[in-house]
Amino acid sequence: MDVLVNAAVSADGKLSSRRREQIAISGEADFARVDRLRAEVDGIVVGVGTVLADDPSLIRHDEAHRRKRRGPNAPPPVRIVADSRCRTPTGADVLAGGPTTYLLTSEAAPPERREALRDVGAETVVAGDERVDLGEAFGRLEDDGIERLLVEGGGELIFSLFEAGLVDELTVFIGNMIIGGRDAPTLADGEGFVSAFPELELAGVEQLDSGVVLEWTVR
Amino acid sequence: MDVLVNAAVSADGKLSSRRREQIAISGEADFARVDRLRAEVDGIVVGVGTVLADDPSLIRHDEAHRRKRRGPNAPPPVRIVADSRCRTPTGADVLAGGPTTYLLTSEAAPPERREALRDVGAETVVAGDERVDLGEAFGRLEDDGIERLLVEGGGELIFSLFEAGLVDELTVFIGNMIIGGRDAPTLADGEGFVSAFPELELAGVEQLDSGVVLEWTVR
Ligand SMILES: NC(=O)c1ccc[n+]([C@@H]2O[C@H](COP(=O)([O-])OP(=O)(O)OC[C@H]3O[C@@H](n4cnc5c(N)ncnc54)[C@H](OP(=O)(O)O)[C@@H]3O)[C@@H](O)[C@H]2O)c1
Ligand SMILES: NC(=O)c1ccc[n+]([C@@H]2O[C@H](COP(=O)([O-])OP(=O)(O)OC[C@H]3O[C@@H](n4cnc5c(N)ncnc54)[C@H](OP(=O)(O)O)[C@@H]3O)[C@@H](O)[C@H]2O)c1
Repeated sequence: MDVLVNAAVSADGKLSSRRREQIAISGEADFARVDRLRAEVDGIVVGVGTVLADDPSLIRHDEAHRRKRRGPNAPPPVRIVADSRCRTPTGADVLAGGPTTYLLTSEAAPPERREALRDVGAETVVAGDERVDLGEAFGRLEDDGIERLLVEGGGELIFSLFEAGLVDELTVFIGNMIIGGRDAPTLADGEGFVSAFPELELAGVEQLDSGVVLEWTVR
Repeated sequence: MDVLVNAAVSADGKLSSRRREQIAISGEADFARVDRLRAEVDGIVVGVGTVLADDPSLIRHDEAHRRKRRGPNAPPPVRIVADSRCRTPTGADVLAGGPTTYLLTSEAAPPERREALRDVGAETVVAGDERVDLGEAFGRLEDDGIERLLVEGGGELIFSLFEAGLVDELTVFIGNMIIGGRDAPTLADGEGFVSAFPELELAGVEQLDSGVVLEWTVR
């Protein structure tokens, strides 16, 4: 499994303000870059925090790029939500239309919620007792032929992926604004590391829109 | 008054871990860059949070660069701590030896603490009722001929400076590590903005050590 994490942050490392509303950090050129990234993967992953905050559909991608890179009949990327307790609303855009949506969930999810989400078409994958066991869940996706994932946030999910050693590449658009806030979400939240910090290797630096895209591989 | 903010952050925007211990984020080339920045200013500013966490002396700088840029008799930069309640320990390294140390403090500081810090040589500047009024305090420094400041953190102080519209330039070394943690200090903490986000303009991108230095001016 190949896992690429991508996000847009302010100059001070925030994904959003403390209100957790969607904020336009990047611009057209970066949207196009992300649409290409999406076209190169089998699935796009977000945490349920992002579903609840932004209600993304995760459908848009660069279709011409997909056909060129993956063949004329390559399916669009599936959509994947890490959601231990099945808090995704049945009316969420991530479940509407388009390609399959996998809900990675845990034993702790109320059965009636799991049922309700299956009824609106979600493929549920149960892995982990209280929280999604991301390694196990990704293994299950791999069994379904999903080999390359793009993770688009948020900071809680991204931290867990680094903690589990599952991230291979990280790309970050850094925008020209200060968001601030000790309670605002950052690129990697969770408990945080206090030692044995995951090490990266800088693989690219590119000016784009009015910001910069940094690209790292994970050692 | 000219205010430059400089800090080193992890790829996920953290100044340190949730334990608030000093972490080696940058390397020799970045230390040398900061030593040159210090040599170009009249004073180096930190918040009392940084004094309590890191006990910096704020003395080291590039003396040859100072003489070249500011003349053979230019004094070393003064040291400045924003410390509303005079929590700086009398034995702090920022008060030992070397150039003058200004303590920016408020009416809320216990008089005996203010006294004790004056006794060990601190120049106290009282501005603000509960918290240091940074605009007023910087004005007072300007009256003393201090025209150019380098602010080295932490995130609480940096946020307040942006909030007060006092920052002219921002340089950030972004290192090759993930620190993570929703409670770890970031480049700009405080309350955070929810609208009218301060806007920056990218002025430089440079690879240094194993990271990148981004340079912005504030609009
Ligand atoms: N700028 C950008 O590029 C960008 C991108 C995405 C999001 N955002 C912003 O980020 C914010 C949302 O981020 P967030 O950090 O709050 O939420 P998030 O990471 O999207 O979702 C976190 C949730 O995922 C669930 N989860 C399931 N398994 C997990 C595991 N093993 N580890 C961690 N989480 C797991 C948890 O809820 P359960 O325990 O209930 O499962 C957790 O609360 C919003 O403000 C959004 O606007 C910005
Ligand atoms: N990587 C780096 O480049 C770097 C640089 C510096 C620090 N750090 C790290 O950052 C952490 C410390 O940062 P921090 O954010 O906790 O502390 P900080 O910003 O250094 O200091 C914050 C304190 O300054 C005082 N202050 C006085 N007037 C203020 C005002 N108007 N606005 C805001 N604060 C004011 C406040 O205490 P009172 O109310 O008592 O005055 C406040 O708690 C440590 O972990 C340190 O290692 C890292």
